[in-house]
This record gives sequence, C-alpha cells and structure tokens, in this order.
Amino acid sequence: MSESAERDAIAMFATLQVRGDGTARERREDVVVEAPFAIQLDGETLAITMRTPGHDAELSAGFLLAEGHAPRGQARARVVKRGTLSSAACGVCGRDEIEDLIARLTPVETETRFLRSVLANVMKELPEHQPTFARTGGLHAAALVTREGRFVVTREDVGRHNAVDKVLGRAALDGLLPLSEHLLVVSGRTSFELVQKAVAAGVPGLVAVSAPSSLAIELAERFRVLLVGFARGGGFTVYAGRFRLAEEE
Amino acid sequence: MSESAERDAIAMFATLQVRGDGTARERREDVVVEAPFAIQLDGETLAITMRTPGHDAELSAGFLLAEGHAPRGQARARVVKRGTLSSAACGVCGRDEIEDLIARLTPVETETRFLRSVLANVMKELPEHQPTFARTGGLHAAALVTREGRFVVTREDVGRHNAVDKVLGRAALDGLLPLSEHLLVVSGRTSFELVQKAVAAGVPGLVAVSAPSSLAIELAERFRVLLVGFARGGGFTVYAGRFRLAEEE
Repeated sequence: MSESAERDAIAMFATLQVRGDGTARERREDVVVEAPFAIQLDGETLAITMRTPGHDAELSAGFLLAEGHAPRGQARARVVKRGTLSSAACGVCGRDEIEDLIARLTPVETETRFLRSVLANVMKELPEHQPTFARTGGLHAAALVTREGRFVVTREDVGRHNAVDKVLGRAALDGLLPLSEHLLVVSGRTSFELVQKAVAAGVPGLVAVSAPSSLAIELAERFRVLLVGFARGGGFTVYAGRFRLAEEE
Repeated sequence: MSESAERDAIAMFATLQVRGDGTARERREDVVVEAPFAIQLDGETLAITMRTPGHDAELSAGFLLAEGHAPRGQARARVVKRGTLSSAACGVCGRDEIEDLIARLTPVETETRFLRSVLANVMKELPEHQPTFARTGGLHAAALVTREGRFVVTREDVGRHNAVDKVLGRAALDGLLPLSEHLLVVSGRTSFELVQKAVAAGVPGLVAVSAPSSLAIELAERFRVLLVGFARGGGFTVYAGRFRLAEEE
C-alpha cells in the first residue's frame, strides 16, 4: 500500500483501554477506515460496498471482473468520489444509501450499564458455545448475553452477519425486542453493518474479540451503543458509548 | 447449536495434509457448509445470502429487522427451502442465482503446478506486506504471488472480498489476465465468492491462512483451482486441485 493510500486507510480515535486488573487508561488508537463506495458501470450503480478507501479503480475493475461484466480483462469501471458520514451528500458514492439505512435507526433508549468484569469475562466463555468452529475452524459466532453475563443464545455461520442475524432473529421471534438489557458478542471484527443490526434490535452493548472499523465507532457513538473491541486475556478496549460502563461495586 | 443443526452445518471432505517437513498424509476433514439462501418477504426475494444451513427462520427475521422491514419485532419472513450445488433447481432458494454466476465461469485452462516449498512459505511473508493491519488489526489482506513465490501486489481492506477485488483489478488494469502462473493469497478463510473471483481471473491457485467452506472446495475442484487452507507454521492442507502440486526437484 502506498503512503497516501495508507493515510486514507487509517483514522485516529480516542479510546479507553481497560486492563485485566480493572485499571484503565486513555489512549489514541489507529483504526481502519470503512466508508461506502458505489461500483458503477456506464453510470449505473451496480453495488454499494463498504470498503477501506484507496485503490478504488482497482476495486471497481476487480468487482466487475468477478461479476462477469468484463471477462478476464477490460473492465470499464467508472470511479466515483467516496463519501463519509461527515461529508456532504454524494449520490454516486454510496453515502445516500448509507444515510438511508441510518435514517431508519433510532438511538438505543435504555440507560443500561455494564460491569467491567462482565465485559472482560464474556469472551472467555464464547468458545464453549462454538462446537462447529471447534470442528472446522471455518465460521464466526455471535451470542446474546445478559447484563449479568449469562449466554442466552449463540449461533455460528460462515458469514458473521448471518450469525448476528440468527441471534437477533431468534430474539425477535421470541418477542424479546428491544433487547435493552443485553450484550451482543461477536467472534470477529465490528463493521458498520454489525452496529446497524445491534441498533435495530435496541442492543445497548456490542463486544468483539477483534478491531472495529471507523464507521462502526461513529455509528455506535451516535446511537448510544457501548462498543468494545479486542476483548481478550481479561482486558478490552472501549471505542464508543463509554457512559455505559458501570462503576464496580 | 442443536445436534441436527450442527449436522447440517458440517460436511466431510478428503484432504491432503502437508507437514512442514514436506511429508503428506491423506485425511478426511470436517468442513463448514456454505449454501445459498434467499431471504424473502411476501414472496419477493430481497437478498441472496451465502450462509451455513440451520436456523433459517431466525436468519430471515434478523435480516429483515436490520433492513427496517420490521422495526424491533414482528418480522414476517417466509422461510424457503435451501439449495446446494448438487440438488435440483430451486428458484426460491438462491440456487438459480448461484448457478447463474457459475455459468459465466470457465475452468482454469493452464496446467501450472506449484512447489510445496512455495506454498509453505508464502504465508510467512504475507505479514510483511500488511502495514495497515500492523497498525490497526482491523483488515484483511490479499496478494498476488508468482509461481516462484514473489509478491507482485498486496492490498488490504476491511472487506476480504474488496481486498481480492483490488488485487485482481490491479492485474486486470495492467492487462495481466488470465493470471495463469500466479497464486492468490488471502489472510482469512475462503468462501464461494473468493474462489469465484479467482476463477474469473484465471488464477490456478488459492492459498488461505484459514479454513475453506464446502462450496469453496466444490467450486475449486470443478474449475481446476488448487485450494490450500490452514497455511501456517510451514504446513498446509490441500482441499481441491491436488493435481497442481509439483514434484519437488
């Protein structure tokens, strides 16, 4: 990656790093940028993809190649300006479609807070609920966990979005929404789409074993979701919704 | 996951496990199932998702919830029969759409073979080409590597499909397709979609650090692609296209 592309691909966010012993410190951390991009052919938008800015002509060419629009070669992709949540409206860059999704969301209303000890422990238990991962190593998991740390439902899927859909769908079918007292726990990274799903279900907290994207953090902050990443080894990092951390008793 | 759902979620494949010392043994391995599924509302297909079978009513309900079709609750998803590549045609299960994608592909023609030593070493070098991952921990990488093991281009992105599109798009823009002498290397797992992209670009070999899905293996075998997974610590597992392993000199 060239130096300028690398610059576009990284944003800095203020975080709170909580250690295994419960102590915490403020940090500023590099976060990978996620932003919408419209893949167009002859002026028509074929797809909106959430991608890391940089090499967008390549992205369009590669996408069109795989879709069969230009068998093994001459993709005529038009590269369009990318948008972010904070920029002006941009009909051709995917931002409108994203804003459209966001406009359907309402901030999570509940004032539920979570104990650090629960947040620290939840990821230790997740592997016990991943029997298919244990056998294949090939899928993601999502779980719904109570404020006290009890696992309510866990689902595994090759697609992490599917695993989240299955968990939240179960809760919807059981009439449990909004999930105002629960954590959504995921085995991988957090993206815009995962936070969007959490907000849609009214979930006040999202805990991931790995890193969040820039857009995941922005969306979580805006819609009052506690966003925790790098939950491992008893420690974790808070990226958004810090007001939801309860004081330990 | 219930016992029956777990059974649907796993398939067994014959593999060749190559150890760090170059010796190999036949194995039968559990692989996670990936199969298309159509999410429908009132008879209309809203999306085709590649998912692991099981809990499909939940998947539909959760998907519709996040899309705003049923704000926080009463999703009216219709659950449809799922399809696989080997089953009969099924218009409502996403299989037709997948067959449509496959029909545009042609088998990789080249007879290129790869040395085990190259396959074993390629993943050791990948991290050197991931500067943004090193800083953020939040993205995937894809790389194009020559038959001799030389890295030609590496791209990082929050979406692994995007990273692959960028790499193959670069090659397409440079007029290098079909990529009949190259390996596509990816930092994560391999899915149907990644193999599809490799085939579209004429790539004879795909190497991943993690597990493949069932559909990735089936597609690779059908279109003559060497599919390598769990490339770590000098060893790797061959899931498809075994005829592309060269004898060591």
